[in-house]
Amino acid sequence: MTGTADIGVIGLAVMGQNLILNMNDHGHSVIAYNRTTKKTDDFLATSAKDTRISGAHTLEQLVEGLSSPRKIMMMVRAGKPVDDTIEKLIPLLDAGDVLIDGGNSNFEDTQRRAQYLKQKKLHYIGTGVSGGEEGARHGPSIMPGGHEEAWPLVKDLFQSISAKVGDNEPCCDWVGRNGAGHFVKMVHNGIEYGDMQLICEAYHYMKNVLAMDNKAMSDMFDTWNKGPLNSYLVEITSDILKFTEGDEFVVDYILDKAGQKGTGKWTAINALDLGTPLTMIGESVFARMVSALKDERITASQKLSGPAESTSVSEQQRTEKLEQLADAMLASKIVSYAQGYMLMRAASIEYDWNLRYGSIAMMWRGGCIIRSAFLDNIKDAFERDSELVNLLIDGWFSKTLEKSQSGWRTIVSQAALTGIPMPAMGSALAFYDSYRTERLPANLLQAQRDYFGAHTYERVDKPAGERFHTDWTGSGGDVSSTAYQA
Amino acid sequence: MTGTADIGVIGLAVMGQNLILNMNDHGHSVIAYNRTTKKTDDFLATSAKDTRISGAHTLEQLVEGLSSPRKIMMMVRAGKPVDDTIEKLIPLLDAGDVLIDGGNSNFEDTQRRAQYLKQKKLHYIGTGVSGGEEGARHGPSIMPGGHEEAWPLVKDLFQSISAKVGDNEPCCDWVGRNGAGHFVKMVHNGIEYGDMQLICEAYHYMKNVLAMDNKAMSDMFDTWNKGPLNSYLVEITSDILKFTEGDEFVVDYILDKAGQKGTGKWTAINALDLGTPLTMIGESVFARMVSALKDERITASQKLSGPAESTSVSEQQRTEKLEQLADAMLASKIVSYAQGYMLMRAASIEYDWNLRYGSIAMMWRGGCIIRSAFLDNIKDAFERDSELVNLLIDGWFSKTLEKSQSGWRTIVSQAALTGIPMPAMGSALAFYDSYRTERLPANLLQAQRDYFGAHTYERVDKPAGERFHTDWTGSGGDVSSTAYQA
Repeated sequence: MTGTADIGVIGLAVMGQNLILNMNDHGHSVIAYNRTTKKTDDFLATSAKDTRISGAHTLEQLVEGLSSPRKIMMMVRAGKPVDDTIEKLIPLLDAGDVLIDGGNSNFEDTQRRAQYLKQKKLHYIGTGVSGGEEGARHGPSIMPGGHEEAWPLVKDLFQSISAKVGDNEPCCDWVGRNGAGHFVKMVHNGIEYGDMQLICEAYHYMKNVLAMDNKAMSDMFDTWNKGPLNSYLVEITSDILKFTEGDEFVVDYILDKAGQKGTGKWTAINALDLGTPLTMIGESVFARMVSALKDERITASQKLSGPAESTSVSEQQRTEKLEQLADAMLASKIVSYAQGYMLMRAASIEYDWNLRYGSIAMMWRGGCIIRSAFLDNIKDAFERDSELVNLLIDGWFSKTLEKSQSGWRTIVSQAALTGIPMPAMGSALAFYDSYRTERLPANLLQAQRDYFGAHTYERVDKPAGERFHTDWTGSGGDVSSTAYQA
Repeated sequence: MTGTADIGVIGLAVMGQNLILNMNDHGHSVIAYNRTTKKTDDFLATSAKDTRISGAHTLEQLVEGLSSPRKIMMMVRAGKPVDDTIEKLIPLLDAGDVLIDGGNSNFEDTQRRAQYLKQKKLHYIGTGVSGGEEGARHGPSIMPGGHEEAWPLVKDLFQSISAKVGDNEPCCDWVGRNGAGHFVKMVHNGIEYGDMQLICEAYHYMKNVLAMDNKAMSDMFDTWNKGPLNSYLVEITSDILKFTEGDEFVVDYILDKAGQKGTGKWTAINALDLGTPLTMIGESVFARMVSALKDERITASQKLSGPAESTSVSEQQRTEKLEQLADAMLASKIVSYAQGYMLMRAASIEYDWNLRYGSIAMMWRGGCIIRSAFLDNIKDAFERDSELVNLLIDGWFSKTLEKSQSGWRTIVSQAALTGIPMPAMGSALAFYDSYRTERLPANLLQAQRDYFGAHTYERVDKPAGERFHTDWTGSGGDVSSTAYQA
């Protein structure tokens, strides 16, 4: 049995509710469902009152109310709840119906589910949805992947509710098959971890080295938001820093233990698996873990000494330091995005996704947490060269890095001397300096591996692939390593 | 049918052959087996000539030649070859026989195999073996885990062939159940990645900033090997740097693309999974990946500019810089080991292994690649306090860090200014400064998460666990995030 509604949404937490309201605004008829019936009823009685949104108390009711081919979007917690929901829906659906997972699923789960549902003759889409509460309500960034033949069935709906930038261009386009959409969303989240860590490091520096108060920092972020650092995260940082309750700045009372829900961690793990040096995001993920060790840090703060150097600066110096800090943030951000794109490129090759990098930059241009003017520069770079191997070597980016590097180096250097932790900015700089170095010291490392493990090495004066072994001690055997790998 | 030999070894690559010769030296009768029969025959005709070592051409022959309960050690490539070998052996073995995996298996595989073979009524031991060719031949570090009831059956053999330190103490002791031995070996390898990267960064700095030649660098490493930096890797670095063929230093001709076989990567992945900030080893793994991008680096070296600063130093400065560099290496090494021990502690809790940290330091004290005097300090620290939460806050380590930090900060700072990549030393310093900071900027990060995703936060002035949400924009709903997690 079918009905007339355009789409069903399962899961009425913050993202689900807001997406439904957004769909309703754009003329789509939606049936809302939540496992706890009361949540559905409450939603219909409050936020969804006086709209065309209807509710279902059972999955059967939901399925029966939808027009064919049915479209059902799951906004449930990633992991087992998605599999459970899929299993309950399969017997209720007909061939050609479209199941959509709009949660933060691990792309490997999406790969598996796409394969499984193909056998069941159902269409499957795993889509990243970013933008938080506000984005979901008024236009998120949407990154769909999965069964490409299902894309035409949901394209208009998705693009209608997504954010728009420029000449009404939707921040939603087809990403690639199987898990590509969730992979790109994962990288988006990893980049978000990096952007947030950079802002935190700048805040730490401004507060502890430049001795600025919340209002002055808020003003600075507001100014930065008007230049090349323009971004949603910089904008809300300005809001947050000046936000008061009574006489008190709320930010000063928030506990410095950062939470995480796994997507940043997944990004770093996938980078390791794909052999991509995602250093800055990796440091940002680890930085949250250090923040979580609050009790240990309290103990350590009493036992571990800091540098002898004084950290006070003059008013004159402050202005100069803030310019250098802005340069450090911009340059580090460029490295972080370059690494994120390196990871997507590695995955695109590994999984045969044919990712279109400029299009991904456009999807992130609006609606999502990392939206910023900067993404236009990325889109432009891939328009100039769709096969660009690394963002860093694009003309605009290399020129920007050239202009920013003096300030960047000064800040990282001073952080080391004054004892302000800047793991992300420092890591980004070390990556920049490694990547631009023709000859790295890994020749010594290869010699060590050959010395203790007979791992062999290649030579700069011999053809690639030809391998050599040196009997460094004069007593080693001539058996090379095959089974044992140190 | 059983025979009289003490142990069978499967796999005659470099580690297998050398372990067999080592066992023979210590009076154990060994049967050698390799899938390719010719390799067995060659071994018996050359290195094993005039010994008590015998060979088997089939697994049946191997099994029949061993005394009961049989002990069979697999020295085959990690992964499927281990499972394949196990499957072939199961039907040939009797209840109570002992199967040992001495390769670099992933500890999760060892956990699975230990469980599987328990059902088959066989004993299983997964053991780390470190020391490369030389160690295997003359005394490796051996880190066994698995079925504890099998430990008495192999203890004497393992401890007889292992390295010895101090008062003839064997570098081999029981680590813990199931995958504990392979986990500890994995962390050992991760630390090895870190130690090697630190040496490479020092080499890079000495060569490019201090303009030292190979002979001078070799002498410096030799001197360092006599002080607190004493270690096998520092020792062989001195050997490598002065090693010539004809007039030419071999190290100068080795291609700067570092290989890796996965254990460093696994260490970083497990750290991410267990929420442990293993930053320095993570950077070291990523550094190998950057080194592998040789072609990209050649291109980038022509497009990306370095710093304006000059890098030349006077003779006088050089002496001072070398002292600072030694401090930077020592301090970074302390951080790396502290992080490695954090990871083992997290795993010990997660998998209920009851790891004895001082005992692990002793196992690494001799025989293995990371052996060094430094491990005595670690053993001492855990003898002073077996529940020590973090090595950094032990008295000896915190004092050493205090003494080294000025040089460490100067080197990291100068590396940033002169464009020499020092991802490991810089990352270690940033970790030190984060860990000793009572109040990190993560309060701002939590505010951001609450702003865009209604993730809620804790407050410093309220009890732990109590969560707050602020309507930062004045327009947010009161629905908190449960399904959606940014």
